[in-house]
Amino acid sequence: MVHIRIVTPIITKGVRDLADIDFLKRPDLEFSHVLLEAGPSSIENEFEHALAVPGVAARAIEAEKDGADALIVDCLGDPGVPAARELVRIPIIGPGEASMHMAAMMGHRFSIVTVVESVRPMLDNLATLYGVAGKMASLRVIDIPVLELEARLGEVQQKLAEQAVEAVEKDHADTIILGCTGFLGCASAISTTLKSKGLDVPVIDPIPAAVCMAEAFVRAGLSHSKHSYATPNIKPIAGYPF
Amino acid sequence: MVHIRIVTPIITKGVRDLADIDFLKRPDLEFSHVLLEAGPSSIENEFEHALAVPGVAARAIEAEKDGADALIVDCLGDPGVPAARELVRIPIIGPGEASMHMAAMMGHRFSIVTVVESVRPMLDNLATLYGVAGKMASLRVIDIPVLELEARLGEVQQKLAEQAVEAVEKDHADTIILGCTGFLGCASAISTTLKSKGLDVPVIDPIPAAVCMAEAFVRAGLSHSKHSYATPNIKPIAGYPF
Amino acid sequence: MVHIRIVTPIITKGVRDLADIDFLKRPDLEFSHVLLEAGPSSIENEFEHALAVPGVAARAIEAEKDGADALIVDCLGDPGVPAARELVRIPIIGPGEASMHMAAMMGHRFSIVTVVESVRPMLDNLATLYGVAGKMASLRVIDIPVLELEARLGEVQQKLAEQAVEAVEKDHADTIILGCTGFLGCASAISTTLKSKGLDVPVIDPIPAAVCMAEAFVRAGLSHSKHSYATPNIKPIAGYPF
Amino acid sequence: MVHIRIVTPIITKGVRDLADIDFLKRPDLEFSHVLLEAGPSSIENEFEHALAVPGVAARAIEAEKDGADALIVDCLGDPGVPAARELVRIPIIGPGEASMHMAAMMGHRFSIVTVVESVRPMLDNLATLYGVAGKMASLRVIDIPVLELEARLGEVQQKLAEQAVEAVEKDHADTIILGCTGFLGCASAISTTLKSKGLDVPVIDPIPAAVCMAEAFVRAGLSHSKHSYATPNIKPIAGYPF
Amino acid sequence: MVHIRIVTPIITKGVRDLADIDFLKRPDLEFSHVLLEAGPSSIENEFEHALAVPGVAARAIEAEKDGADALIVDCLGDPGVPAARELVRIPIIGPGEASMHMAAMMGHRFSIVTVVESVRPMLDNLATLYGVAGKMASLRVIDIPVLELEARLGEVQQKLAEQAVEAVEKDHADTIILGCTGFLGCASAISTTLKSKGLDVPVIDPIPAAVCMAEAFVRAGLSHSKHSYATPNIKPIAGYPF
Amino acid sequence: MVHIRIVTPIITKGVRDLADIDFLKRPDLEFSHVLLEAGPSSIENEFEHALAVPGVAARAIEAEKDGADALIVDCLGDPGVPAARELVRIPIIGPGEASMHMAAMMGHRFSIVTVVESVRPMLDNLATLYGVAGKMASLRVIDIPVLELEARLGEVQQKLAEQAVEAVEKDHADTIILGCTGFLGCASAISTTLKSKGLDVPVIDPIPAAVCMAEAFVRAGLSHSKHSYATPNIKPIAGYPF
Repeated sequence: MVHIRIVTPIITKGVRDLADIDFLKRPDLEFSHVLLEAGPSSIENEFEHALAVPGVAARAIEAEKDGADALIVDCLGDPGVPAARELVRIPIIGPGEASMHMAAMMGHRFSIVTVVESVRPMLDNLATLYGVAGKMASLRVIDIPVLELEARLGEVQQKLAEQAVEAVEKDHADTIILGCTGFLGCASAISTTLKSKGLDVPVIDPIPAAVCMAEAFVRAGLSHSKHSYATPNIKPIAGYPF
Repeated sequence: MVHIRIVTPIITKGVRDLADIDFLKRPDLEFSHVLLEAGPSSIENEFEHALAVPGVAARAIEAEKDGADALIVDCLGDPGVPAARELVRIPIIGPGEASMHMAAMMGHRFSIVTVVESVRPMLDNLATLYGVAGKMASLRVIDIPVLELEARLGEVQQKLAEQAVEAVEKDHADTIILGCTGFLGCASAISTTLKSKGLDVPVIDPIPAAVCMAEAFVRAGLSHSKHSYATPNIKPIAGYPF
Repeated sequence: MVHIRIVTPIITKGVRDLADIDFLKRPDLEFSHVLLEAGPSSIENEFEHALAVPGVAARAIEAEKDGADALIVDCLGDPGVPAARELVRIPIIGPGEASMHMAAMMGHRFSIVTVVESVRPMLDNLATLYGVAGKMASLRVIDIPVLELEARLGEVQQKLAEQAVEAVEKDHADTIILGCTGFLGCASAISTTLKSKGLDVPVIDPIPAAVCMAEAFVRAGLSHSKHSYATPNIKPIAGYPF
Repeated sequence: MVHIRIVTPIITKGVRDLADIDFLKRPDLEFSHVLLEAGPSSIENEFEHALAVPGVAARAIEAEKDGADALIVDCLGDPGVPAARELVRIPIIGPGEASMHMAAMMGHRFSIVTVVESVRPMLDNLATLYGVAGKMASLRVIDIPVLELEARLGEVQQKLAEQAVEAVEKDHADTIILGCTGFLGCASAISTTLKSKGLDVPVIDPIPAAVCMAEAFVRAGLSHSKHSYATPNIKPIAGYPF
Repeated sequence: MVHIRIVTPIITKGVRDLADIDFLKRPDLEFSHVLLEAGPSSIENEFEHALAVPGVAARAIEAEKDGADALIVDCLGDPGVPAARELVRIPIIGPGEASMHMAAMMGHRFSIVTVVESVRPMLDNLATLYGVAGKMASLRVIDIPVLELEARLGEVQQKLAEQAVEAVEKDHADTIILGCTGFLGCASAISTTLKSKGLDVPVIDPIPAAVCMAEAFVRAGLSHSKHSYATPNIKPIAGYPF
Repeated sequence: MVHIRIVTPIITKGVRDLADIDFLKRPDLEFSHVLLEAGPSSIENEFEHALAVPGVAARAIEAEKDGADALIVDCLGDPGVPAARELVRIPIIGPGEASMHMAAMMGHRFSIVTVVESVRPMLDNLATLYGVAGKMASLRVIDIPVLELEARLGEVQQKLAEQAVEAVEKDHADTIILGCTGFLGCASAISTTLKSKGLDVPVIDPIPAAVCMAEAFVRAGLSHSKHSYATPNIKPIAGYPF
């Protein structure tokens, strides 16, 4: 049995619970889910990204103690992934990293369709650090904030589909990454629109992709290199529960 | 049940059979294995690489017809992966591509330790095309040809370990990729040596890594983009069984 | 006397014969021409590209035996160029490689105008491997397949000219590469259109460019490095006449 | 009068106070200094880096309220610089960013000589994000932790000088960046050693460099782009004093 | 007192004098100004750029002899900056280099809005050599030659503002560099237009930026590396006053 | 008949005359040769490089007027090549550019073995601008100045051979470029040494390579793009004979 812990790195209750990912369960694959106690309401800029990191780091230690086999950080900006890797040995999977590398293996150029303009530098920078910036055709936004996604679902799906079509037709993308884990479940609607335009283009839903990548690392017996992600020496820390 | 077909893209019997990968079976994961009928004895240069491609393409069509869920091409040079993707919809996994992207997710810089100097340009070029050349610390060779690996196993493991240690200590690698699928099973011996030197560095064995990646794509319902890997129009072909 | 062999790496008779390149003859420069016996009808994707490679390799050995001073592979995708280099010492010239490097020496950014969308990844990848991707302004297509070029010549020239103008005006290209050797002879019509728009932009016809580059290597006494393109060791091969 | 606030992004008293930078005062340039209340003891990995960010963000808001003209974050890893820029309009100067861009303007290739191996990925990544990775000749370490620098000053200076000499002689560096703001004041000793070897190579001490860069931005009336570093919308935050 | 010499690297009297930069004076910062005796009328291509270099080199020697603390070359193409650095030890500041590095520190992607299309390769090449090409969103032109800027000031400001708006809205620029030192004083008009469109984007006026950067180098006691910019050995020179 | 003019961009008589290149004549290929009247004695840094440019530009105009079909600038630093292209329509060939692009077509990684350390930044920068920096394995020097090459020929050849061997064995070069046109004729001695070590590595002598490339451009009817290298408008120039 592989046990994957998912941490949604925000404090807002109701945007994600275990039931949302229930459909990914298999007889040998189970999930658990936590939010943060300290952190932001949603992550749409560097400041909110930073506020999530200490909480993710704490959740990583907890997940390893709880016997989880891997931890997924439920945000495309992958907040806290490097820090968490220093603190534990279990794989820490960022949906942004997993999606971009899967996209790089699936085609020639991918586009990310995401929420708001303010995440552009953050996601651009991640693509650069992950080494796949040369595989990114474009980043496009639907201009709807994270916390309004649920209430405006129809509009979200329509705009995602429109931007995905433009990414293929104008930017030469051959693969679409949904650029926010809050888009969970929207992939099939977008695929339908793409197909109706004759565009045979896969759509990566980052949470299912991250789950499969987490399982891949666990099954392969692989995790991040502790040579680069060395465990920090113990030194006094103020203001955080470490 | 996920069924993964493995094609060893050479004609040499005895270097690989299903029993070698038996240890990767799980209740919901099964394997089948084929060699090529037309092709090279081993793949150590661009010429032999090219001779394998039509055979791999044919094996891909066959695998899809046989109901396999994914095909792994059992060579780090990933021969025929792009061509095969054009012919089928099931994921075609190259161990080179899978290993390099996993390594990119596991650390900061990886090194490939491989058989002979003549594969350097080929593997360098793959890293460049996969977008992860900037993550490659070095490529090192043990100078033992593929078809001698089995007979000289002790020497192979010792030299792999030596080069892995040098890659970490001199080239700042934090992750090692075994640069030939013929090294299957050697990872643990190398890990032992690395650990004995105090080097906490993961070693990627490409076939188990590719299997887990293949399963990840199948479980996620994802495959390569048919937008870029479009099915070829039917035109006369001479000299090949297509 | 320099003798250049040209191999058109397809099986389709009639699309190219020696008479087409007769105008390039000089007192000290002669040509011979062959097609493939085994291979594709035309090359518009990775699969067809791969089917051409073994035949090109065989033609390279034959060319060297016949005393040719250089071999040109008559396709912008340069199929078989690396493999052939391993088998012989005479220069193997790819029109894609020759054109892109000449373009890089002629201006700041070049565009390739080619046949169909399905060759985009292949030509993008070649630019990357040749090291000149940063010099490529864009790749544009006229959406006419190779085997229809001859019958639709007027339309081909008009669309090539339109895309060339757009490449200059929208993509900041200063040099145009005709992206298929089947466009042989179209350069002057496109130049005329460009000039009529006030655009003083050279157009590279890849076969004449490759011929001149082949002659340059022969006259300079230079060929590819056998250090990287080492002659393969003799090992059993099945299904190919090597 | 230009007023520059310096935040040392750790909680350890005694490693830095206003007196250390007193020598940089001028009639029209004054300094103030703060530590963090919540944060790490020193910053030698991604985890400690992350723990410093919320505190730096708070200090940025405070600095702007206090009328400071610019804020310098006293660590070569530039923790919190992007987040702080979103919260204020005054220039936020990272010594890493300032030093690397100054080095890029001073020569052809720079090397960073820093404390411990564990900061390598962090500083490599910063060079990549700042766009100057191609200007970095090497990163070398002296293997002495931040909190031991003061007690082992002689050894620190000797090892810095040794690594600087090697960077020039082996890695073709022409400019040295001291890779930790804790090396404040060590530049002249290293310069002396370099000169004694006939190496006419400038040494950038990051804090004086950052001070001059901060003043440059203030005097030029320039600061970061609020288009990219947009002020976050107000949303609930838990566990932080924002 | 810091004394900055400005050399306007052309022979045309009247386009720049000391009064133009008078507003940048401070009690501890003074300026002097020279033109060239031999050189071009304006710099809009590689030929004119080259004609300015020997004159700039001579002015650099003169500036150092005159006791200037730094020399600014008053042209965005930075003519003569590398050559001058070999001849002197005082900082030689190119407004192109200073502006691009400041822009890289201010945001995610900058655009340059400049005079005429013929400077595109030159400025593109500078961005590449300075290491910040990856930070350049676009280069746009107003199609007005340098020597007409003064007479057509209203049109210049309007077109600069239009192109700046397009750079932000279409090319994702977050920072604008005025791409000619002849635009001195135009920044505020462009900022006003940008703000009226709701675009909170800084505009870098290269001469004030270069002045502040020159002062930064002088105050920090830093200059270019004489290891890379080594003083030339004395050898006969014909036709130049060296 | 193709007529190639060679300009040696220095004033030093005796280091090059027409007899040196006599061996490259063919019945349909003739040469003429000029030095500069104004310029440096040799080119070993940016300053001397700059002093050669106006003279090369004048020689380009003269060459075109004299009916030459192409001009070669006899220095690996390619001084004046961009400026000269703006002034004429005949191909202007830089031996550095021609050699690096030929090397890129001949192998996987080339090394340049040159005279003195002071040309490193210049040649590195050229490789970057030509787009082939990623193909450069290393740059090595023999530490003998240009004007001593002739008198120390034996030592020159020995040191070139030593550095070439090191480039292959330590830096993975597969092709050697002689990094100074003053090494004319040394290629065969170096090849002999390389072969005696079992290294099957071609050596590019830049002047013969440039001659063949010049002929290739002339025969192909191609030259630089006047779109990028537009003819400068006529404006007053002081101090130069234009």
